[in-house]
Amino acid sequence: MSKIAIIMGSESDLEVMRPAAEVLKQFGIPYEMTIVSAHRTPDRMAQFAKSAVEKGFSVIIAGAGGAAHLPGMVASYSTLPVIGVPVKSSNSIDGWDSVLSILQMPGGVPVATVALNGAKNAGILAAQIIATSDQTLRKKLTDYKRDLESQVMDMVSRLA
Amino acid sequence: MSKIAIIMGSESDLEVMRPAAEVLKQFGIPYEMTIVSAHRTPDRMAQFAKSAVEKGFSVIIAGAGGAAHLPGMVASYSTLPVIGVPVKSSNSIDGWDSVLSILQMPGGVPVATVALNGAKNAGILAAQIIATSDQTLRKKLTDYKRDLESQVMDMVSRLA
Amino acid sequence: MSKIAIIMGSESDLEVMRPAAEVLKQFGIPYEMTIVSAHRTPDRMAQFAKSAVEKGFSVIIAGAGGAAHLPGMVASYSTLPVIGVPVKSSNSIDGWDSVLSILQMPGGVPVATVALNGAKNAGILAAQIIATSDQTLRKKLTDYKRDLESQVMDMVSRLA
Amino acid sequence: MSKIAIIMGSESDLEVMRPAAEVLKQFGIPYEMTIVSAHRTPDRMAQFAKSAVEKGFSVIIAGAGGAAHLPGMVASYSTLPVIGVPVKSSNSIDGWDSVLSILQMPGGVPVATVALNGAKNAGILAAQIIATSDQTLRKKLTDYKRDLESQVMDMVSRLA
Amino acid sequence: MSKIAIIMGSESDLEVMRPAAEVLKQFGIPYEMTIVSAHRTPDRMAQFAKSAVEKGFSVIIAGAGGAAHLPGMVASYSTLPVIGVPVKSSNSIDGWDSVLSILQMPGGVPVATVALNGAKNAGILAAQIIATSDQTLRKKLTDYKRDLESQVMDMVSRLA
Amino acid sequence: MSKIAIIMGSESDLEVMRPAAEVLKQFGIPYEMTIVSAHRTPDRMAQFAKSAVEKGFSVIIAGAGGAAHLPGMVASYSTLPVIGVPVKSSNSIDGWDSVLSILQMPGGVPVATVALNGAKNAGILAAQIIATSDQTLRKKLTDYKRDLESQVMDMVSRLA
Amino acid sequence: MSKIAIIMGSESDLEVMRPAAEVLKQFGIPYEMTIVSAHRTPDRMAQFAKSAVEKGFSVIIAGAGGAAHLPGMVASYSTLPVIGVPVKSSNSIDGWDSVLSILQMPGGVPVATVALNGAKNAGILAAQIIATSDQTLRKKLTDYKRDLESQVMDMVSRLA
Amino acid sequence: MSKIAIIMGSESDLEVMRPAAEVLKQFGIPYEMTIVSAHRTPDRMAQFAKSAVEKGFSVIIAGAGGAAHLPGMVASYSTLPVIGVPVKSSNSIDGWDSVLSILQMPGGVPVATVALNGAKNAGILAAQIIATSDQTLRKKLTDYKRDLESQVMDMVSRLA
Repeated sequence: MSKIAIIMGSESDLEVMRPAAEVLKQFGIPYEMTIVSAHRTPDRMAQFAKSAVEKGFSVIIAGAGGAAHLPGMVASYSTLPVIGVPVKSSNSIDGWDSVLSILQMPGGVPVATVALNGAKNAGILAAQIIATSDQTLRKKLTDYKRDLESQVMDMVSRLA
Repeated sequence: MSKIAIIMGSESDLEVMRPAAEVLKQFGIPYEMTIVSAHRTPDRMAQFAKSAVEKGFSVIIAGAGGAAHLPGMVASYSTLPVIGVPVKSSNSIDGWDSVLSILQMPGGVPVATVALNGAKNAGILAAQIIATSDQTLRKKLTDYKRDLESQVMDMVSRLA
Repeated sequence: MSKIAIIMGSESDLEVMRPAAEVLKQFGIPYEMTIVSAHRTPDRMAQFAKSAVEKGFSVIIAGAGGAAHLPGMVASYSTLPVIGVPVKSSNSIDGWDSVLSILQMPGGVPVATVALNGAKNAGILAAQIIATSDQTLRKKLTDYKRDLESQVMDMVSRLA
Repeated sequence: MSKIAIIMGSESDLEVMRPAAEVLKQFGIPYEMTIVSAHRTPDRMAQFAKSAVEKGFSVIIAGAGGAAHLPGMVASYSTLPVIGVPVKSSNSIDGWDSVLSILQMPGGVPVATVALNGAKNAGILAAQIIATSDQTLRKKLTDYKRDLESQVMDMVSRLA
Repeated sequence: MSKIAIIMGSESDLEVMRPAAEVLKQFGIPYEMTIVSAHRTPDRMAQFAKSAVEKGFSVIIAGAGGAAHLPGMVASYSTLPVIGVPVKSSNSIDGWDSVLSILQMPGGVPVATVALNGAKNAGILAAQIIATSDQTLRKKLTDYKRDLESQVMDMVSRLA
Repeated sequence: MSKIAIIMGSESDLEVMRPAAEVLKQFGIPYEMTIVSAHRTPDRMAQFAKSAVEKGFSVIIAGAGGAAHLPGMVASYSTLPVIGVPVKSSNSIDGWDSVLSILQMPGGVPVATVALNGAKNAGILAAQIIATSDQTLRKKLTDYKRDLESQVMDMVSRLA
Repeated sequence: MSKIAIIMGSESDLEVMRPAAEVLKQFGIPYEMTIVSAHRTPDRMAQFAKSAVEKGFSVIIAGAGGAAHLPGMVASYSTLPVIGVPVKSSNSIDGWDSVLSILQMPGGVPVATVALNGAKNAGILAAQIIATSDQTLRKKLTDYKRDLESQVMDMVSRLA
Repeated sequence: MSKIAIIMGSESDLEVMRPAAEVLKQFGIPYEMTIVSAHRTPDRMAQFAKSAVEKGFSVIIAGAGGAAHLPGMVASYSTLPVIGVPVKSSNSIDGWDSVLSILQMPGGVPVATVALNGAKNAGILAAQIIATSDQTLRKKLTDYKRDLESQVMDMVSRLA
């Protein structure tokens, strides 16, 4: 089955990025999570991105903060869909730097950007991508949507 | 083969969104392009989003400007990957409204956001998604990357 | 008498939205408060908005944060005045996303937006709307203004 | 029948504000349009706002740009619903000043803010407010919504 | 001798505004400090501003937060120099609303704006204004500058 | 009589700054206008600021764009009131840099900041400052306010 | 003598970046200017950055717009000082994306960022860096400063 | 050997600026650290900047917050490379004022700006500048890069 890579620039991003892994586990999608720094291990990053297809990855989720170059650079090396998670790290200007340096990629090299600290949605988006060729997973996503609805209906009951 | 939907809120978004269609045509990926307004045709939007899977769509590209609700609402109705294109429309505050109202989706309902007016990248991202289960398309994406590189090398020669 | 709907996307918005209810209670205006999520219960939202007139609602107050689509989508389904309350939720970029995705509605579908976390003012605005055809309520609003003034005059005395 | 006031700080705002008048005319709602400057005619403004109820106005639409104090000050003098239209005037910083100085009113004194340069929506919102006690106007608003939908469907046909 | 007015919209601004009073006391300039709310006591505000000259005030310092209309409105009623202090109140969007709604006054009605929460500088600026016709006070301002310098030189020594 | 200095960093600011001179001429207040660059002629700037009192200046109006240091540096050298005019120069980021680098002065060294490109208001503010000790000028300012009002009333007539 | 590299992501940045070359020519500093795209030629970029020292470059000036990764990535591969020039390209959100994605580098990997479109200053800064070990160049920089001053004094004369 | 100056406007910036000193110590580069305030000790600042070359400094690192004029003014007085560190001080608007008033210098007078609170990178950049004529230091910078890489690889191990 398809495998997802979850990478981030530093251990300090781990808490923000973990929900991506949890969602993938919930959907039964295999993933590997590791640290890849664009600025401190650029060769490792290039190597990682170039070999991602042959290693069996289908989607790369990359989280980074501040001048967040990891998602865009991985996208420049790979033809896989890259999902970028802007991280509101301690050295960030309210998250604006993280968001803009991931989102505003030039024509030719897209990054699928999710909300600030939106790792959970990165995981779901990865699942949606895999589900374009996996009916069983599509079914799980439909169930997941139903669960979201149920959670709201529970709130409705509690409030009433 | 997989089919892509390209939707937008108004004819006025057509010029910004057309590069998505052109890129898909270039990759030989079938697509349908139409107008779906979240605010003026909400029922059409719901109907469109709910029936997108059974109509054979694999990915939905949705462009919108200002308080841009189309991508997020389509994502709330469908389990397909939704790619959002923030449009810098005439009623936009420098594009910030379009970007933030597409990007900042809550946990559970992702939108894969690309750059402001980044319809071309939306098309490429859709192709990357399809290519997760289509080796021929993956090959085309690799060629596309090589073309990007060649264009730069031509610039290098011209400047030298 | 006219009835006001107070809706919000999640239980987590309840603390921010409660002042709307308190103000309405203070003015003796009946209201109903419930959870309606644009992104997790879109059908419930459509159903709610479409039936709001026949259920006897005169005004809808809708609070949401982040990519805040609830007020605008309710306004797309209903001809009632919709008052939008941007909520500075935990996944918000300093509230800018909430404000812009509620305020910047396209021509044809207005949302009456109040200040960030301004639920109290949403309640007062709803009362002002009802008072356009209710002399007794207008009188109460005049008294309320006088109370505001008195509170300031008390501060003046304390400071002097 | 209810009468709407449309006021603005300067002749230079007239082009931006006129759509409010056009929409009201379209709905058959009487209105009066005049210049009232918070900063250059503060007494006229106070007088206007204080006498608005007895002059038969039901709603006040106020447009202003830059440090836009007109809507909020009128709201401080009157219990009528005040709709604020942020105008992107020549002395504005991209419209942010107009938006924030109208929107961010303190608790107790709401202004119903619409989008930057959103005078058309101010007119529609005024109509929605009047329609809370006017079934005929409610019917017109329903027709208006249908027209919006038809315009989109015409675009759909043209594009197909 | 000249007298300074220090006004603010609410008791909650008192802590931020007090340094203006302290600086004036330090310079031996008489002042009166009171609460004047543009939005809750507009008549009091108009009355205050119109009578400020005859009451013997030379400069008005006005602090306000959010949609901060007090400084600009006082300036619209009076020919005295008005110093505006943007207050980062709890209902403010990071202070931007306070700053822009005080600073961006239209041509004809200036407000001398100081930094966010910059009440101390408002006091010094008021002293500088009075000193344009008061040699003794000018001398004190020169001494004050020398003290600022000494404080830095003390830091230099401590660090060395 | 008191004399006003109008300084700016470059000839390119002249068009934006001229209204300050025009207003002063209108009020009959003597002024001198010259170029003083904080970054290209720092010694001239220091010399200018230090000698401003003895040269007979009462107020300094300083305009600058981008990283606009002129007003703040002049204020650091002089005890005169310094009025800062943020100029939206060609190298400015939408004027935000000019505004923030003039406005956000530290405690102890105020700059009286006016609106972006607000040189006219800088001139009026200078007049208001002089008028704190000049009854004739105060009278002219009162007349000026009346003229502002008349201009609006003319607009009212034209629109009616 | 030391040699400077001027690189940029695309021919479209050439007009903005040329002043860097002109300034270096003026100072008699050898330079090479070429196109290196982080996103379209990542291997070329890595190769360029890794070999820059042995090719005899002392400083790298890198210009880029939007999600501007070129300066930061070159800095991650090289120990040379990297000067980043944020370019306000057509796909930029008012330049904010370019500025933040160049400036906000994480600890360990600095980029010396200059103003938006500030290529001229990038050239001067490169000269200042070379001059740390080149007395002749230091002398030229002193002369350059004197020229800047003279240009202002010419303006002073013209205006007088 | 070359000597680096580290200056800042106030003792309160010391904690933010200290990492610059620590990095220089780590590289064995001599430095002097002191307080120089642009606004409270402008003469000391001018004197400091003018004499920096003859005192043997090669690079000046200057940190400041709010309307941060110190780096730019030092650069106006000296031909040395000036590295500006925007400090997010207590009187800053989320750091935007500090960043923009350091970064946006006019043509002719560059400041090498690093990230908000990025003193550590200022130190490294200073080392990179010295290393343009110091092979031993270049070697240390290469080792430093290798250490950065090792730290990431340690994280990789820990996470695996």
